[in-house]
Amino acid sequence: MKHLRSVDDLSTWEIEQLLHDATMFAKGEQWAPAAQTFIANLFFEPSTRTKMSFEAAERKLGLEVLQFEASMSSTQKGETLYDSVKTLEAIGANAVVIRHQQDRYFEDLVENIQIPIINAGDGCGHHPTQSLLDLLTIQQEFIVLQGLTVVIAGDIRHSRVARSNASLLKRMGANVYFSGPEEWFQHNDEPYMTMDEAVEKADVLMLLRIQHERHQEKSTVTTAAYHQRYGLTVEREKKMKPTSIIMHPAPVNRGVEIAHELVECSRSRIFKQMNNGVYVRMAVLKWALEQQKEEKVDGYSISGR
Amino acid sequence: MKHLRSVDDLSTWEIEQLLHDATMFAKGEQWAPAAQTFIANLFFEPSTRTKMSFEAAERKLGLEVLQFEASMSSTQKGETLYDSVKTLEAIGANAVVIRHQQDRYFEDLVENIQIPIINAGDGCGHHPTQSLLDLLTIQQEFIVLQGLTVVIAGDIRHSRVARSNASLLKRMGANVYFSGPEEWFQHNDEPYMTMDEAVEKADVLMLLRIQHERHQEKSTVTTAAYHQRYGLTVEREKKMKPTSIIMHPAPVNRGVEIAHELVECSRSRIFKQMNNGVYVRMAVLKWALEQQKEEKVDGYSISGR
Amino acid sequence: MKHLRSVDDLSTWEIEQLLHDATMFAKGEQWAPAAQTFIANLFFEPSTRTKMSFEAAERKLGLEVLQFEASMSSTQKGETLYDSVKTLEAIGANAVVIRHQQDRYFEDLVENIQIPIINAGDGCGHHPTQSLLDLLTIQQEFIVLQGLTVVIAGDIRHSRVARSNASLLKRMGANVYFSGPEEWFQHNDEPYMTMDEAVEKADVLMLLRIQHERHQEKSTVTTAAYHQRYGLTVEREKKMKPTSIIMHPAPVNRGVEIAHELVECSRSRIFKQMNNGVYVRMAVLKWALEQQKEEKVDGYSISGR
Repeated sequence: MKHLRSVDDLSTWEIEQLLHDATMFAKGEQWAPAAQTFIANLFFEPSTRTKMSFEAAERKLGLEVLQFEASMSSTQKGETLYDSVKTLEAIGANAVVIRHQQDRYFEDLVENIQIPIINAGDGCGHHPTQSLLDLLTIQQEFIVLQGLTVVIAGDIRHSRVARSNASLLKRMGANVYFSGPEEWFQHNDEPYMTMDEAVEKADVLMLLRIQHERHQEKSTVTTAAYHQRYGLTVEREKKMKPTSIIMHPAPVNRGVEIAHELVECSRSRIFKQMNNGVYVRMAVLKWALEQQKEEKVDGYSISGR
Repeated sequence: MKHLRSVDDLSTWEIEQLLHDATMFAKGEQWAPAAQTFIANLFFEPSTRTKMSFEAAERKLGLEVLQFEASMSSTQKGETLYDSVKTLEAIGANAVVIRHQQDRYFEDLVENIQIPIINAGDGCGHHPTQSLLDLLTIQQEFIVLQGLTVVIAGDIRHSRVARSNASLLKRMGANVYFSGPEEWFQHNDEPYMTMDEAVEKADVLMLLRIQHERHQEKSTVTTAAYHQRYGLTVEREKKMKPTSIIMHPAPVNRGVEIAHELVECSRSRIFKQMNNGVYVRMAVLKWALEQQKEEKVDGYSISGR
Repeated sequence: MKHLRSVDDLSTWEIEQLLHDATMFAKGEQWAPAAQTFIANLFFEPSTRTKMSFEAAERKLGLEVLQFEASMSSTQKGETLYDSVKTLEAIGANAVVIRHQQDRYFEDLVENIQIPIINAGDGCGHHPTQSLLDLLTIQQEFIVLQGLTVVIAGDIRHSRVARSNASLLKRMGANVYFSGPEEWFQHNDEPYMTMDEAVEKADVLMLLRIQHERHQEKSTVTTAAYHQRYGLTVEREKKMKPTSIIMHPAPVNRGVEIAHELVECSRSRIFKQMNNGVYVRMAVLKWALEQQKEEKVDGYSISGR
């Protein structure tokens, strides 16, 4: 069984295939499994984009969606994630999509769960479908990543997107920098750039949301001060190269990471990212379900990694 | 793009068409869009009738329903309604149905949202599909509204139904009166009638729910006293004309606006209203989706009003 | 109208038919109603297995599912269960599945609701689809129940499963015993057995969950002490007969009723029970919907019991 825990679960060839499939889905190609197929979506944290986007992707593939609402489930009676997932498997789910607040929640699952697990975000860990949709958005713009300068700016420490994306983008040939408050960058592998440098050099300026809900200590920086020192202000945007683009995984704190007026400006790809998200998730679901079928047909189990 | 914010968005001809379509749907007529179509339902306030009724209508038309649960969405991370709706548009929603506690929430949306917005209730403002289903229920009974006496009784001040209905019913030729505690009727356009007058004169007695959750000051009237002074008691009902009917948008406070025993009495149309609601919403969804298609086919955009 | 309130609503012949249908569904048999059919699921208590299992069953039969979320419904405005169900009937639900914290909640409903009510658990009362899936699981193992020893062990007092199952299993010929803390067994009809006796004599050892959330007084027994005195420990399991099986309706308190290691051991049927649950619920839904059709075709109403 192959799971999608992080982009490290994917070979470069698989990534290329996924982006190809996503592109074909965006052009209207149809695919559906031969038999009625159930996907269980387990979201233990609030989500609009990822949850709705997985659901739209599932419906576009003709899949049956089992929506697991943690607040109305046996989680309230103390049931573990493992037992909940094992239950959904017993009930007939052919794959599960999980967002959970615990880093690497999937480690408790992979050994005994016999259906693909698609990670829709684990704590401050990984968010592989976000990384894939970001990659697709950049490829649509620049075709190849070789030599591109990508600056990921903001709340790196609490972001499951930042490190996944950095790793994936470097693997595809991009030069990746981090930006934002310096005290958030201890023990980081990526080179640092101030926001003033970033706007001049970046081909892709990837802003991250300040995740107020994950900050345990109170920040000493006000949001207005943050915007002036580390955010994409209207003034800074004017210094960007004509061809460079702005990305953000959203939800956006308007006026903090990015000026309100820039969210829908001509170089923003923020809503394009969301649109790509549906097609990338269709491709990932197809990959997971076809994988499963092959294993069953062949009668042997590919190692669970 | 045409939205349904209030009944004022509809011409009299459009209203007649919608009621005609609703009637045909009630008789079993089928209609479905040519391609897979997604509707996002965003309910920010509790709802049983309107939410379930829109969902039933959507399924009867073969539409895919994206259920947005505010309590498990990025609304919890501070995302605005505008950004949530824009997200759903980017993800592929072809229309949105919204109930929100803020009066005229749609004013922030109409300028930049490119898909139809169907208002399922805004604060103390409007509830156009309720007004349409009420109109259909009255037409089924009396065929024409010209000259009918309709009394809307109760919590006018907090009701998004009262004013919408009054406006629509007068436009269709009915004589509309308000009834209920006099201190709730400052600055009203409609003539006042006591409940004792109302039961004798009304062809349609439209009771409203006391919206305890919207009252900011504590009421000085107990529910038992309210029932005796302003409610439809068993005694008052006996004075109604043989042909007159009782309506209520529900949920009903049994024993307050209306005696428990009268909720399902022979002149009550309360559950008939709910049944009509499904067909009226099917007609509204068809109207919104066909509208959208015409605009795309013609290649120009009808003014967003 | 026939409802499924408890297994007492079913004749032995009907039970046999339901288990036959469930078995055929498990083998892949298809059945769907002739016209589009709506089922409303109303869950007023947290549930994973029962809720997801009913939903999977409904989708496998091609039914449209209306998911009623109590926390976002007019229940929040004080609407009664009766009015909510009546509303769903008016909106077009062809049957309702209800879990509610009130014992015998259905007594307020059966007189005036014209669609089948399927009880998915009432307070500490009944849980008929659980009893049926337990029966199916035992029949798959032993074919006939005549003469089998079944021990139901644990929190009998708060369990809606214990008494329903005892009654049904005795009707099918099994010898039923209860086990667990003696102070929980006042006024019980079933003979008592200690857990040490149970593991040696039972063909079926049916463990129940300690329902912490239903205990009003604080228990004086710690969970570790409970496990040692009344639970299925690793040591006790070794004394079980080679052919005997372990069952549990779940969610399991691992390390309390049952040792963690035994939940997925070779004699555990815990996840098999969940799998059977989907097929049993398909059979129950078919039974309820066909029932309804016959009544309509025949033009007369079978007494509502």
